[in-house]
Amino acid sequence: MSLDTVLARIDADLPAATDRLLDLLRIPSISTDPAFKKDCDAAADWLVRDLASFGVTARKCPTPGHPMVMGHIDGDGPHLLFYGHYDVQPVDPLNLWDRDPFDPAVEETAKGTVIRGRGAVDDKGQLMTFVEACRAWTAVNGTLPCKITFFFEGEEESGSPSLVPFMEEHKDALSADLALICDTTLFESKTPAIVTMLRGLLGEEMTITGPDRDLHSGMYGGVAMNPIRVLTRVLAALHDDEGHITIPGFYDGVPELPDTLRDQWAGLNFDHKTFLGDVGLGTPAGESDRGPLEMIWSRPTCEINGIWGGYTGDGFKTVLPSEAHAKISFRLVGDQDPHAIRKSFRKMVEDMLPPDCDVTWKGHGNSQAGSFETDDPMFEAARAALTEEWNVPAAYIGCGGSIPIAGHFAKITDTKPMLVGFGKDDDGMHSPNEKYDMSSFHHGIRSWARILDALIRRDGA
Amino acid sequence: MSLDTVLARIDADLPAATDRLLDLLRIPSISTDPAFKKDCDAAADWLVRDLASFGVTARKCPTPGHPMVMGHIDGDGPHLLFYGHYDVQPVDPLNLWDRDPFDPAVEETAKGTVIRGRGAVDDKGQLMTFVEACRAWTAVNGTLPCKITFFFEGEEESGSPSLVPFMEEHKDALSADLALICDTTLFESKTPAIVTMLRGLLGEEMTITGPDRDLHSGMYGGVAMNPIRVLTRVLAALHDDEGHITIPGFYDGVPELPDTLRDQWAGLNFDHKTFLGDVGLGTPAGESDRGPLEMIWSRPTCEINGIWGGYTGDGFKTVLPSEAHAKISFRLVGDQDPHAIRKSFRKMVEDMLPPDCDVTWKGHGNSQAGSFETDDPMFEAARAALTEEWNVPAAYIGCGGSIPIAGHFAKITDTKPMLVGFGKDDDGMHSPNEKYDMSSFHHGIRSWARILDALIRRDGA
Repeated sequence: MSLDTVLARIDADLPAATDRLLDLLRIPSISTDPAFKKDCDAAADWLVRDLASFGVTARKCPTPGHPMVMGHIDGDGPHLLFYGHYDVQPVDPLNLWDRDPFDPAVEETAKGTVIRGRGAVDDKGQLMTFVEACRAWTAVNGTLPCKITFFFEGEEESGSPSLVPFMEEHKDALSADLALICDTTLFESKTPAIVTMLRGLLGEEMTITGPDRDLHSGMYGGVAMNPIRVLTRVLAALHDDEGHITIPGFYDGVPELPDTLRDQWAGLNFDHKTFLGDVGLGTPAGESDRGPLEMIWSRPTCEINGIWGGYTGDGFKTVLPSEAHAKISFRLVGDQDPHAIRKSFRKMVEDMLPPDCDVTWKGHGNSQAGSFETDDPMFEAARAALTEEWNVPAAYIGCGGSIPIAGHFAKITDTKPMLVGFGKDDDGMHSPNEKYDMSSFHHGIRSWARILDALIRRDGA
Repeated sequence: MSLDTVLARIDADLPAATDRLLDLLRIPSISTDPAFKKDCDAAADWLVRDLASFGVTARKCPTPGHPMVMGHIDGDGPHLLFYGHYDVQPVDPLNLWDRDPFDPAVEETAKGTVIRGRGAVDDKGQLMTFVEACRAWTAVNGTLPCKITFFFEGEEESGSPSLVPFMEEHKDALSADLALICDTTLFESKTPAIVTMLRGLLGEEMTITGPDRDLHSGMYGGVAMNPIRVLTRVLAALHDDEGHITIPGFYDGVPELPDTLRDQWAGLNFDHKTFLGDVGLGTPAGESDRGPLEMIWSRPTCEINGIWGGYTGDGFKTVLPSEAHAKISFRLVGDQDPHAIRKSFRKMVEDMLPPDCDVTWKGHGNSQAGSFETDDPMFEAARAALTEEWNVPAAYIGCGGSIPIAGHFAKITDTKPMLVGFGKDDDGMHSPNEKYDMSSFHHGIRSWARILDALIRRDGA
């Protein structure tokens, strides 16, 4: 039967698809917090049941952390793999949410209909766009158009500790012609896009220790070293006045943007005033000698994601704390080596410590940046399908985020990754009041149906 | 009857006095946290009942905040006033306490018997040394030896917002020949001391705001200004490499130590290696051109007492927060003007803010430093009494802490303050596992009996 019948089926089934997504969003599968371990497990079970309901052979696969979900359906033509993650970010600060993050709902807003709740866009809503496209396809055609493997992870938001060992162990099952990944956004919330450049990520948590107990600043203030003071000095030294990162060797392996890509990006007419204005800002804050799109897509960063120490409650307490803490992350590009940067960063901090202070470290996930070839004709086929659905020419773009799985597919299973996503800049990914536009969900499902159709037609051609 | 009879009575009554103190320590009268308002009230009621039990006319006096307790007993001779505070510091981090902070107990330790619990030294235990001395005196003599006013506050740990208006309103009742204050320590935990120099205190809470919501560092990292980065830059700029404070005009009104006092302090042979070594430190961290005792007693400080922003939970979250916060306090000396310093500090921070960032302020209590004359013969009488009790010559010393009430007595009620306390450096004032040595409690009670006796004998002579 024709693609049009599948698209019509998707349109008719949208209310039921929305209900299914809301059901999945009700499970608080926060992977980074051990208190939600059971909920991660429940989300995996939910997905196994859902895949099975339209004929996919699916199972939950244990790991030392949260389980993976693997599903498979046989067929002719190319072997496609689809990856998504069912775990979500923590929800604090909870007081900034307008509703319970795990009591999701469809809301009418000034900008249109949205699905509100933690995980709506990242990544449950995006994951379900592909699942719903497959469900509609089987409803119309009795089966899927080609061999498809579903691969869902539950640790993406907590550094994916089990991912690489699991992929190495299941290398054969996870090898395919193309790995579709739905965890990215449209370009500027309106242009469909295939991401071909991703930044890497390195996370560090540091604790500066000083006195062996909290002290009273009346008795010790001035004479005892305060770990918060040391921490602020160390962190303030990470950037110079022009926004460059000062860690020795940090820029090793950072490439200059090729002229062709620079021209292509210039052609996108990125409007940084709107991009920043949407979140109450106006001035690009990165390296003063770089453009805003370059800052996001192709320059490395160093950000303090969390800081805490001393008395943080109501009122005042004149304490000199015995410890101060920070979480720092680096976005990496090109050939920057996360291990070398970790080492250099730690040495820089250790060299700055005054007498009486010490530092302890906790390393969080690290991944190199990725840049993906688009010379396989499947990319042009998919881009044409996206252009068709959205009625705007689809673009090859960079992405400031880090999606290590894309690199793993290339390296471990020799599978080309293709990143297509339908999030918007104002979705509040990782923030309070996360949402996914109903139009993203609807056109996302339809986009996958068109891409499936385009890939098998191209393959069969 | 003789002083010896009173001292014998104190010795015999020590177990009962300890039980009374434990009873008062069970009341969680944390003044800075509104959740404990009822408990502050209960502590005031407890004190009214206890004073009344040995013949003092006592009452609870409402204020816009926590109540004051006033007690009075008439008599001949000098009019003495005694000040203490019944409120206590918050208890976090609770996990560092070895017992419930409000389930106090007498414990045997390697260094002797201690009373353990929040408020044991600051200030419930110290306050009760005077109350117990008066109780023993009336038990032996039927009444007190002179006119005595008791004045207990419940907001000392939260900046005393009601204190000055209350003192002005009750100026007559609070005017006396001498105001005894028991909220200080022995010198180096062993030498009885009268404090004649106190640092002032200025507290500031700042919130740096940037984007109007929390952002995902993948999407915005590098291009959006991170308020934590701004906060660390601002705070790191408050000290130069030699430990001097860089706020313009900060040192205006800071006097050089008079040679006589410098010589006297040198004679105390302060052992900073032991003082710092007791808390796991070794190197004086203040202005590099000042001695350690000077740093604590007569130099101003700037300390970060708390800092927080972004994700501080388990695991990692690559968030760019919309806000970052810090609590900063300054210890002031000489004629430093807290209002001028607040203004200059705020201006310095505001001048450092990059585009897109703003700062909001919350001022906490402020008090000027104090320095008190000791030429009244009552001081020498009290010093002789302390020397007698402790068998070590009592000293006139400075104190790094801030006890604004001392200045208020001098200014508002024209009453000379005399600061005598029995805390020790290792009491954990404002820290987990706060304690008061049983020997401090016992000899503290006996010290007040001796001081009362010395003051009336001197007056009658």
